[in-house]
Amino acid sequence: MPKRVVILGGGFGGLYAANHLAGKDVQVTLIDRRNFHLFQPLLYQVATGELSPADVAFPLRAILSRHRNIRVLMAEAVDVDVAGRRVILEDGAAEPYDELIVSTGARNYYFGNDSWAEYATGLKSLEDATKMRHRILYAFEAAERTTDPEEHRAWLTFVVVGAGPTGVELAGALGEIANDTLKGDFRHVQPEQARILLLDNSDRVLGPFAPDLSAAAEKALIALGVRSLLNVKVTAVDDSGVTFQSATGSERIHARTVLWAAGVAGSELGAKLAASAGVPLARGGRVAVDANCALPGHPEIYVIGDLAYAVDASGKPLPGVAPVAMQMGSYVARRILGRETKPFEYWDKGTLAVIGRASAVAQFGKVHLAGAIAWLSWLFIHLMFLVGFQNRLIVFIRWGFNYFTYNRGARLITGEGVPLRSHDNEGNAVSRH
Amino acid sequence: MPKRVVILGGGFGGLYAANHLAGKDVQVTLIDRRNFHLFQPLLYQVATGELSPADVAFPLRAILSRHRNIRVLMAEAVDVDVAGRRVILEDGAAEPYDELIVSTGARNYYFGNDSWAEYATGLKSLEDATKMRHRILYAFEAAERTTDPEEHRAWLTFVVVGAGPTGVELAGALGEIANDTLKGDFRHVQPEQARILLLDNSDRVLGPFAPDLSAAAEKALIALGVRSLLNVKVTAVDDSGVTFQSATGSERIHARTVLWAAGVAGSELGAKLAASAGVPLARGGRVAVDANCALPGHPEIYVIGDLAYAVDASGKPLPGVAPVAMQMGSYVARRILGRETKPFEYWDKGTLAVIGRASAVAQFGKVHLAGAIAWLSWLFIHLMFLVGFQNRLIVFIRWGFNYFTYNRGARLITGEGVPLRSHDNEGNAVSRH
Repeated sequence: MPKRVVILGGGFGGLYAANHLAGKDVQVTLIDRRNFHLFQPLLYQVATGELSPADVAFPLRAILSRHRNIRVLMAEAVDVDVAGRRVILEDGAAEPYDELIVSTGARNYYFGNDSWAEYATGLKSLEDATKMRHRILYAFEAAERTTDPEEHRAWLTFVVVGAGPTGVELAGALGEIANDTLKGDFRHVQPEQARILLLDNSDRVLGPFAPDLSAAAEKALIALGVRSLLNVKVTAVDDSGVTFQSATGSERIHARTVLWAAGVAGSELGAKLAASAGVPLARGGRVAVDANCALPGHPEIYVIGDLAYAVDASGKPLPGVAPVAMQMGSYVARRILGRETKPFEYWDKGTLAVIGRASAVAQFGKVHLAGAIAWLSWLFIHLMFLVGFQNRLIVFIRWGFNYFTYNRGARLITGEGVPLRSHDNEGNAVSRH
Repeated sequence: MPKRVVILGGGFGGLYAANHLAGKDVQVTLIDRRNFHLFQPLLYQVATGELSPADVAFPLRAILSRHRNIRVLMAEAVDVDVAGRRVILEDGAAEPYDELIVSTGARNYYFGNDSWAEYATGLKSLEDATKMRHRILYAFEAAERTTDPEEHRAWLTFVVVGAGPTGVELAGALGEIANDTLKGDFRHVQPEQARILLLDNSDRVLGPFAPDLSAAAEKALIALGVRSLLNVKVTAVDDSGVTFQSATGSERIHARTVLWAAGVAGSELGAKLAASAGVPLARGGRVAVDANCALPGHPEIYVIGDLAYAVDASGKPLPGVAPVAMQMGSYVARRILGRETKPFEYWDKGTLAVIGRASAVAQFGKVHLAGAIAWLSWLFIHLMFLVGFQNRLIVFIRWGFNYFTYNRGARLITGEGVPLRSHDNEGNAVSRH
């Protein structure tokens, strides 16, 4: 009987592993709680109304079901019975494995302040993205309606916490929405007067990039009307704004829209797995793996992608980005097939971050690019890796329309269940520090 | 000072009225609780994963804001103060008017059995559509997981209540999903074995069409695996299925997915308006209007579209379809501008209903079409009336992909908040009659 391989999670890591195991002499079960693969790098464009959820998601069955040795199961894995070599599903069913690949990714993390989650929307799922879209667009609508100048200002103040690639991309897109997309759409709101603040506790934006690219990104953000507040530490987020600590003391920003791009932590299944295997969790709720991406002492369990805490030859932790997950997925699949004996090595082909219209930064080894060429590289690479020809074509068209008309095709305020602060209390006194 | 015209609702009626008043010497305020115009005729394609929500919706501001005499307000109108000539908004604010156009449309109606709404999802909003999509796709996933043959069957049984155009379109699309889209996607489910039942209390499908077209539609549905149960009256809908009364007595269908296309009633604002004006509500919670689409005794208040109960010269009520709403919208705008004195007359250009792939029926006066030509007419007309060039292009591309690949680009199970019956209790005994 062929080996039973269970893959948890259909993100980049799980999907690349499954693709490498397709048609081979192994029995693969891929388990995901959603029925689609999500192209996370473009999620911020859903949050900002440029793309539609279906453009960045692709049904897992449509990708994998033609391979007869792969079974897809829509289910939530809640625990791993390491000793019994079984995955426990949410309905109590157990899925036995000979080898296990855990690639359940990361979740939003608020540095232990879970209550902030209600006010500072993160960006890990499609639901996060449509909620963020709802909040951003609704803020302009609420500002249009309010007659209180203070509230008007608070609705037009957007705070993005975290100036890594996601935070920079969100802040840049907010700048475009305010300056271009919504221009002339309102009677009492001048969208271009929106305040967009980008907060980070480090001393520059895009920390993982080289300093010259951080400087270029900062300049591009300023041109879009984004103001960065660096070396600050957020100490409170509530329904009327953000409090932070800077060198000059504690400050308060009165803002109705706070977006969270500051922290992620390993998914909850990582903690369950570590407990079941009797190993401690690494930094950020991630699971430390050995040089083969395996759980120490458990060569039959691989942990890959954002959930894994892996270090390169120099001892530096690998970043939580899509290429690492993809390469790990292919690597562990080759190991399972007995075709790989060397330790995992990440081949860094480069990093990109988009800031706005015709503006991005790219770091390909010693080559640093900023501006239109970096932006074109970004467009091309993201289109290339997007799953599904239909998605590629439609994303290409939406980008083209956005570029030439400044409009955003998917700026809908949807989701009745979205917990949104009511504007009934507009004009009421709000706490300020 | 120019006349203040308030329009409630940005559907076909409200939007056509606004477009006719654009640039004229009137001050227009269009109030809608959503920020977009929804192209309802294609909503069933969102519910069946062919189109994405953003494809059938278009931001009202993007359509109207370039006209300086039109103001768009995202707000919910909760009442009309007929004597004071003011519309009351949900936050208590009042919007005064000289002339009022009420086009707030219809809502799902369960013949007084509001508890059915939880189990039989209707199709009036984008949220309805994504919820329906969730339920349809999730049913196949749950069937794949269950080991109980009875439950397996219940998850693969789909009941559509109501065999008017929407019910026929939904049932036909379900047939395509089962026979084509999901083919080979599962290991324990043969999607083509899904039972799709179309229930109606009349003696034929597509009641508003001529009998020969009903017969053609029925034949096309059978080819897609849809079975119609006619002359039946639904008496109960709960979490395990549907009970109905037929000539032979009471019957029960054990089904996990029940879709509602049977009844609509005028929006709640219609009842408020009638009460405020002291007139009784007409059939189906609609507001009876005079020959000028005005509220009797109140020539300054027009009620148009699905909310209006209007009759033609022979006393027959006008149907609740998009062309009636569009023509009423243009008509009342012309009246407000003083350019129209004749009573409203509906020009019926024809009716179409799509059944599936290359299959539709069309009735243009005495010309009755069924099959591919009717289907092409349907495609062309719907593309033509869809708002926004980007939407038209993307819908055209999605239709093309669907036609040639049988795939559906937007078959995502999203919405964490969707109240879905858990599959934890699969295998448990379920009540049966």
